[in-house]
Amino acid sequence: MSDAGEIPRVAALPTILGALQDPVRLEMVRRLGNAGAAQRCSSLYDTIGKSTASHHFKILREAGVTEGWVAEGNTWQRLRTEAMDEAYPGLLAAILDAANHHQA
Amino acid sequence: MSDAGEIPRVAALPTILGALQDPVRLEMVRRLGNAGAAQRCSSLYDTIGKSTASHHFKILREAGVTEGWVAEGNTWQRLRTEAMDEAYPGLLAAILDAANHHQA
Repeated sequence: MSDAGEIPRVAALPTILGALQDPVRLEMVRRLGNAGAAQRCSSLYDTIGKSTASHHFKILREAGVTEGWVAEGNTWQRLRTEAMDEAYPGLLAAILDAANHHQA
Repeated sequence: MSDAGEIPRVAALPTILGALQDPVRLEMVRRLGNAGAAQRCSSLYDTIGKSTASHHFKILREAGVTEGWVAEGNTWQRLRTEAMDEAYPGLLAAILDAANHHQA
């Protein structure tokens, strides 16, 4: 359920790592991982503007790491955990663990 | 045992992911991981020049992912597996698995 109404493939590994190497995007993904459920976009970042955040969400979505949709006037995001696990078993979990470790 | 004679810390997670998001560097690391031992630099890349390769090795080394040294006229590289595992348990293994999956 992407914004475009079609589910993108999980990208090649360099694209995924490129999406996650940005600290803002890594934090978005970390928060989604810790929440374990869809979150409103606005809960996933702090110090950037809405349009900058949209840019980051787009990169994550195009890499196949997240999906986003609008419901009841809010934009939501969630991790594509199953698709990621199918493409690269264990990778997302390891990066989320590392991100929490990095955060601590 | 880095080129500079001192062992750098493993970098912050965004820096590590940034180092590995480049396909040439990811392939260098994949080959080192599969070899399971130090390798001569020249065995770790195919289609780039020596100075470009040196640039990529420098980025990997500064991220703390690899170390390099000169012995008997050859430059060698190896993964800093233990340091990486200590900093981010499971991360390097997951990325190596994903890189081999991506390669297949």
